[in-house]
Amino acid sequence: MLHIIRKRTFRVLEKASGDDRLSRWVDLFLIVLIMLNVVVVIMETVARFKSAYAVLFHYFDLFSIAVFSGEYVLRVWACTVDKRFGSPILGRLKYMLTPMALVDLMAVLPFYLMFMSFDSRFLRALRLFRLIRLVKIGRYSRSFRTFGNVLKSKKEELVINLFVIIVLLVIASSLMYHLEHERQPEAFASIPAAMWWGVSTLTTVGYGDVYPMTVVGKLLGAVIAILGIGTVALPTGILASGFAEEMTRRRTEPTLCPHCGEGLGESAPFPSPLIDREAERKAVGDS
Amino acid sequence: MLHIIRKRTFRVLEKASGDDRLSRWVDLFLIVLIMLNVVVVIMETVARFKSAYAVLFHYFDLFSIAVFSGEYVLRVWACTVDKRFGSPILGRLKYMLTPMALVDLMAVLPFYLMFMSFDSRFLRALRLFRLIRLVKIGRYSRSFRTFGNVLKSKKEELVINLFVIIVLLVIASSLMYHLEHERQPEAFASIPAAMWWGVSTLTTVGYGDVYPMTVVGKLLGAVIAILGIGTVALPTGILASGFAEEMTRRRTEPTLCPHCGEGLGESAPFPSPLIDREAERKAVGDS
Amino acid sequence: MLHIIRKRTFRVLEKASGDDRLSRWVDLFLIVLIMLNVVVVIMETVARFKSAYAVLFHYFDLFSIAVFSGEYVLRVWACTVDKRFGSPILGRLKYMLTPMALVDLMAVLPFYLMFMSFDSRFLRALRLFRLIRLVKIGRYSRSFRTFGNVLKSKKEELVINLFVIIVLLVIASSLMYHLEHERQPEAFASIPAAMWWGVSTLTTVGYGDVYPMTVVGKLLGAVIAILGIGTVALPTGILASGFAEEMTRRRTEPTLCPHCGEGLGESAPFPSPLIDREAERKAVGDS
Amino acid sequence: MLHIIRKRTFRVLEKASGDDRLSRWVDLFLIVLIMLNVVVVIMETVARFKSAYAVLFHYFDLFSIAVFSGEYVLRVWACTVDKRFGSPILGRLKYMLTPMALVDLMAVLPFYLMFMSFDSRFLRALRLFRLIRLVKIGRYSRSFRTFGNVLKSKKEELVINLFVIIVLLVIASSLMYHLEHERQPEAFASIPAAMWWGVSTLTTVGYGDVYPMTVVGKLLGAVIAILGIGTVALPTGILASGFAEEMTRRRTEPTLCPHCGEGLGESAPFPSPLIDREAERKAVGDS
Repeated sequence: MLHIIRKRTFRVLEKASGDDRLSRWVDLFLIVLIMLNVVVVIMETVARFKSAYAVLFHYFDLFSIAVFSGEYVLRVWACTVDKRFGSPILGRLKYMLTPMALVDLMAVLPFYLMFMSFDSRFLRALRLFRLIRLVKIGRYSRSFRTFGNVLKSKKEELVINLFVIIVLLVIASSLMYHLEHERQPEAFASIPAAMWWGVSTLTTVGYGDVYPMTVVGKLLGAVIAILGIGTVALPTGILASGFAEEMTRRRTEPTLCPHCGEGLGESAPFPSPLIDREAERKAVGDS
Repeated sequence: MLHIIRKRTFRVLEKASGDDRLSRWVDLFLIVLIMLNVVVVIMETVARFKSAYAVLFHYFDLFSIAVFSGEYVLRVWACTVDKRFGSPILGRLKYMLTPMALVDLMAVLPFYLMFMSFDSRFLRALRLFRLIRLVKIGRYSRSFRTFGNVLKSKKEELVINLFVIIVLLVIASSLMYHLEHERQPEAFASIPAAMWWGVSTLTTVGYGDVYPMTVVGKLLGAVIAILGIGTVALPTGILASGFAEEMTRRRTEPTLCPHCGEGLGESAPFPSPLIDREAERKAVGDS
Repeated sequence: MLHIIRKRTFRVLEKASGDDRLSRWVDLFLIVLIMLNVVVVIMETVARFKSAYAVLFHYFDLFSIAVFSGEYVLRVWACTVDKRFGSPILGRLKYMLTPMALVDLMAVLPFYLMFMSFDSRFLRALRLFRLIRLVKIGRYSRSFRTFGNVLKSKKEELVINLFVIIVLLVIASSLMYHLEHERQPEAFASIPAAMWWGVSTLTTVGYGDVYPMTVVGKLLGAVIAILGIGTVALPTGILASGFAEEMTRRRTEPTLCPHCGEGLGESAPFPSPLIDREAERKAVGDS
Repeated sequence: MLHIIRKRTFRVLEKASGDDRLSRWVDLFLIVLIMLNVVVVIMETVARFKSAYAVLFHYFDLFSIAVFSGEYVLRVWACTVDKRFGSPILGRLKYMLTPMALVDLMAVLPFYLMFMSFDSRFLRALRLFRLIRLVKIGRYSRSFRTFGNVLKSKKEELVINLFVIIVLLVIASSLMYHLEHERQPEAFASIPAAMWWGVSTLTTVGYGDVYPMTVVGKLLGAVIAILGIGTVALPTGILASGFAEEMTRRRTEPTLCPHCGEGLGESAPFPSPLIDREAERKAVGDS
């Protein structure tokens, strides 16, 4: 009997098949709750809202903690249905160390830690830490999955570029430090300080708080801006082509339901970029 | 007899075939009038022009309202020629709810609403609202059509990216708020306030009104600038490839006249990006 | 006899074949002179250089005028060798109206106009106008030719985009004017003034002299920045792909000498992007 | 006997084959030492670190000089193993003039030059010059090699673009100088000064220290920003496509060990972008 409930719990929490309405509503509820949490964390920092809705925010937080704690406990309890985490104790420990389970834990932990400390700075950090709940949405989001695939497929190119960017940044900032240090001892106090200028220029952000003022510095700055920008913007081109490849790949390889072999695309009731349970589906053997 | 006039009106207003000179001149007249309207709305906000040409602007506005109102009434009257809106009352109501008809209505409505209100702020908003006349040009413009097709074909990628950008923006701004709030309680008053910095940085606009000042804040800002820019610029790459595909598609699928089967490209008397009546053509069955 | 000299002059000035050493040296001399002219025009605006080298600059200017005037007169005299401009008077007039001949004329005209006016502002404009000599280099430059081809091949896409950019700019600036006018009556004095903000934002330049200050204005600004940037950066993607196509085309279609059918690529003595006489070559029938 | 030691030294320093553990550890040690050197040069410019760790930095510098000097001497001594530098004296001289050997020399030379001068500005420049040690890492880095290949393969396009960018910059800056000189005699003091604005705008950095203030100047600035940005961002598109081609090329042409013909990819113990000894491998004939 307990085994059947556990199996049902597992299915509801971990995978949504086309005919399981409860599972879908639970997913939707959790997605909405996560998003509301993010909105509340952001709103709480606005003085006007904080004073007006302090009580509401507090009860919403308690409610969220209750739901997410319950979700975490149920997930750990039901995970033994999955073959990989079959053993009652070691399997559950193994499950608790999977990235998504750790995120689930971290999403509720700050609340319980708040009772153990009274350092205000630490408490503020804990409040902000609730934003990690946003990562929980990664479980349901196809967007992150796609983006992750793109990053993975272009990892090598991106690492090469990051390396070249860092070298370019070090050289540009060191030269600029040397040229501008005497004229602007504050803004170009050291090479790391000059790097703030370097990042601001090479990324074309150009806040305008630091810029060369000597003639030679401006000359060097102009050359670096013209020659360097291509380098820093390269990852965009690389990601864009990776994205195009990923979309082509996804369209040619249709996602099939592992149980019946039918296409899943049409039956999804939620906006497509938000539901993707492929990963869990793969992990589950019995159905 | 009335039916023939209605049919003629419909043809003149709704579609331009190669041999209908009146229709073309009406199109050109309306395009020029719309553009002049936009110019006038813009000029009116310049104090110098407003005082100098107030009377001219006023009469031009009256003239435009008369033309656009007449155009709207004639379109609604003649729309029954189109099979989709065949029924005298229900068909016309259905036509009035099509997006372009709504735009036509909104283009003249502010004028009539002005007589019903004396709130100056509302009146100013109404004056600005006349800019919606610019959207009327969409009926004649191939540019918007092409652009719309590109957006539609890449919708999925763009939604995925927008989602990733928003998550990136929330995380970057929240961290920066936490790091800079104490040092700059004004600029980083709340997470939404910090998001203004986030947008300014991730889009590389970098106005320079807000930027990190603490050492850790600058470090985080530099990392976000280097890692995040690729993400925000991705849609450009996606749109550019979508554009290339759309242009290829358009060149390989020549636009044929639905009536005679001949190519239409060569006979267009107006600059190519401004005339495209494909949509109306498709909707009309009798000819 | 005169005919032979004219023919030789024409060949030396208008086309460089592999075995005509004089023609090549004349080309190189003119290229260097043009570049020196540009450097001198730039240097003259620097007070330090102007006072130090005023006399040198003056004589260099006289020398350049003499050379360029002579070049122009010789070109007009010799142009009748070209079949298109065969008639002694009408042919020469026709030649004088070709774009490059007009540029040649405009490159020397300011000097002669200087004697006819004493208005200092007009004189300053004339001095700057000498920069049009830079356009003369277009005759020898393959870079401009390639770039021109790319622009031509992507003309349609670029026009479509420019149209969309302008509409986007008008809408964004009008809305921002409406939202910020009361708070910043100076910076957002009118819609054209708000367009300065619009261009600065949509191009991501972001000087920081104008930016929204109200909460709603910042919200709109953020949305416009995120959604609009892709549009304004699109032409880059279009140009880049046009460039790639042009380079492929050029590599697969080797440039052959029209006289002997041999490849010309290898024998060019000057840096490749600077010499391209294809256009003149095509125009000349006899050889 | 000496010959065997020299051969071994050569192999350890110049090439790493899969089974030579010493060579790999020496490589790793040198890479780490180079990176630490860069970090130390950067840290030394920060007043706080300089005063705290002055002695440590000094001894680290002495140690680095010792290692790099030894490395240089050993490389010159052992280079005769390479057929190209076989002759004891002329071969070694030839080797000393190879780019990487010159870099090795320049990496240690500043230290010895410090004893010969007491001019503080020159000494500061020498300290900064130690950053050239960063270039030594190019010997081990596949990133730079890939990047260099991309630059080489797109050299022609990049040169064409640079030429167009410079012409655009000259024209834009000259016009802006003419328009803004009277209003802002400081910021637009000369055309070179106006070029600082030009670079800042065309690269979209937009520091905000210089921008047009007159109405006509802003109009021109807006036109230049919209039309010019595509041009300056073109190299990015060119580099991105060059990068894609290079990566495709590299994946289809697997790197084989020249000695045994087996693939080398899998056995590399260091992060892939850091080890690439292809160049040295090619140069060595005996194995």
